[in-house]
Amino acid sequence: MTTGVRRRMGVEERRQQLIGVALELFSRRSPDEVSIDEIASAAGISRPLVYHYFPGKLSLYEAALKRASEDLASRFTEPHEGPLGARLLRVMRRFFEFVDEHGPGFSALMRGGPAVGSSTTNALVDSVHQAAYEQILSHLGVTEPPARLELVVRSWISLAESTALIWLDGRRIPREELESQLVQDLGALLAVSAGHDEEMAALLRPLLRQEPGDGPFADLVTRLVKLAS
Amino acid sequence: MTTGVRRRMGVEERRQQLIGVALELFSRRSPDEVSIDEIASAAGISRPLVYHYFPGKLSLYEAALKRASEDLASRFTEPHEGPLGARLLRVMRRFFEFVDEHGPGFSALMRGGPAVGSSTTNALVDSVHQAAYEQILSHLGVTEPPARLELVVRSWISLAESTALIWLDGRRIPREELESQLVQDLGALLAVSAGHDEEMAALLRPLLRQEPGDGPFADLVTRLVKLAS
Repeated sequence: MTTGVRRRMGVEERRQQLIGVALELFSRRSPDEVSIDEIASAAGISRPLVYHYFPGKLSLYEAALKRASEDLASRFTEPHEGPLGARLLRVMRRFFEFVDEHGPGFSALMRGGPAVGSSTTNALVDSVHQAAYEQILSHLGVTEPPARLELVVRSWISLAESTALIWLDGRRIPREELESQLVQDLGALLAVSAGHDEEMAALLRPLLRQEPGDGPFADLVTRLVKLAS
Repeated sequence: MTTGVRRRMGVEERRQQLIGVALELFSRRSPDEVSIDEIASAAGISRPLVYHYFPGKLSLYEAALKRASEDLASRFTEPHEGPLGARLLRVMRRFFEFVDEHGPGFSALMRGGPAVGSSTTNALVDSVHQAAYEQILSHLGVTEPPARLELVVRSWISLAESTALIWLDGRRIPREELESQLVQDLGALLAVSAGHDEEMAALLRPLLRQEPGDGPFADLVTRLVKLAS
């Protein structure tokens, strides 16, 4: 019963608090620019005490990155219900929410940040890419992807990541426009590949046939027809 | 007149030779796996002599990266003649030639390699991206790109880079197919964006109107119509 008096935190609880404080600061400024002093001050503890929980800035940064990448990967999870386009759109919405919330922290995660090249950081970024890749495959209903499908999905993940990074730099385009465009981009890239390869076409046709007239893929076709006329 | 006798090289000539030898080795194995001993042996000089020209492996690696990125950027230059699609296709051909020639060295360049996170490496990678971006804008005939055009072109550059990296890992798809697909991908991504924004549509329409029936963009439309039927 701690009323008014600051309760003493356990080790794990304190570590989690520091990670939260660091992520909050990283959401407004690049991790490079945030000092341990600031993190200590925002957490209401002394600098030496921060070092008691994290031996150095890198270890605190890596722990923050770990929580952020688990958070991001968890947002890719989407129930296998309803049309594919609408599912992907919901995932893109949650992805951009994450990007919006984390701002400079997201840029740092994807560009490697202060821990660039550390095997921990690389492994975390790879795990986010892999989670995105596996989620998309599962929604496409594919367990053994042909080389062309793997290429389209993985390169689209890079496209989505770059799109988010470029958007963050000035936020000059409405987020919602990019969310639906990225879903349509995936459709367009799959279609380009299917135009060259019968295996890809056979994979894509049944998926598109199930798309409703008000989904993002039908919307793309409408827009393209209007553009061409 | 050096006949049979090994001529003594000047400092700059020797440095260039070592860079060439390093790049040749990096084209077959990752720079991480290539030792200074191997470079010395391939160049026919002693290990200490390599260190005479380059104070450490990092400085030789950075010099090799510099030459490779200048080489890559130079391949983006394309005369402003003939239809846009055909020009982009020639650029993509030279890009994949570079990727094919440099193999693991290209992966290392784009992933940062042994010098990951060094400001020199980052600046070189940025300069390659910037060269690609400026070339494409100049071929689109745009000097002040709207935010949406910048986003599409820059994110497509990421897509092209990822496509090349994924292709290198096993080379399971014919190179020519990816070269023409990447050109068509750019057209598709521009079209998706133009479907959402009138400024992009106004920019794209005259470009597409100039495309001949046997170009990559007309080819894409033919393939998509066939796919949809």
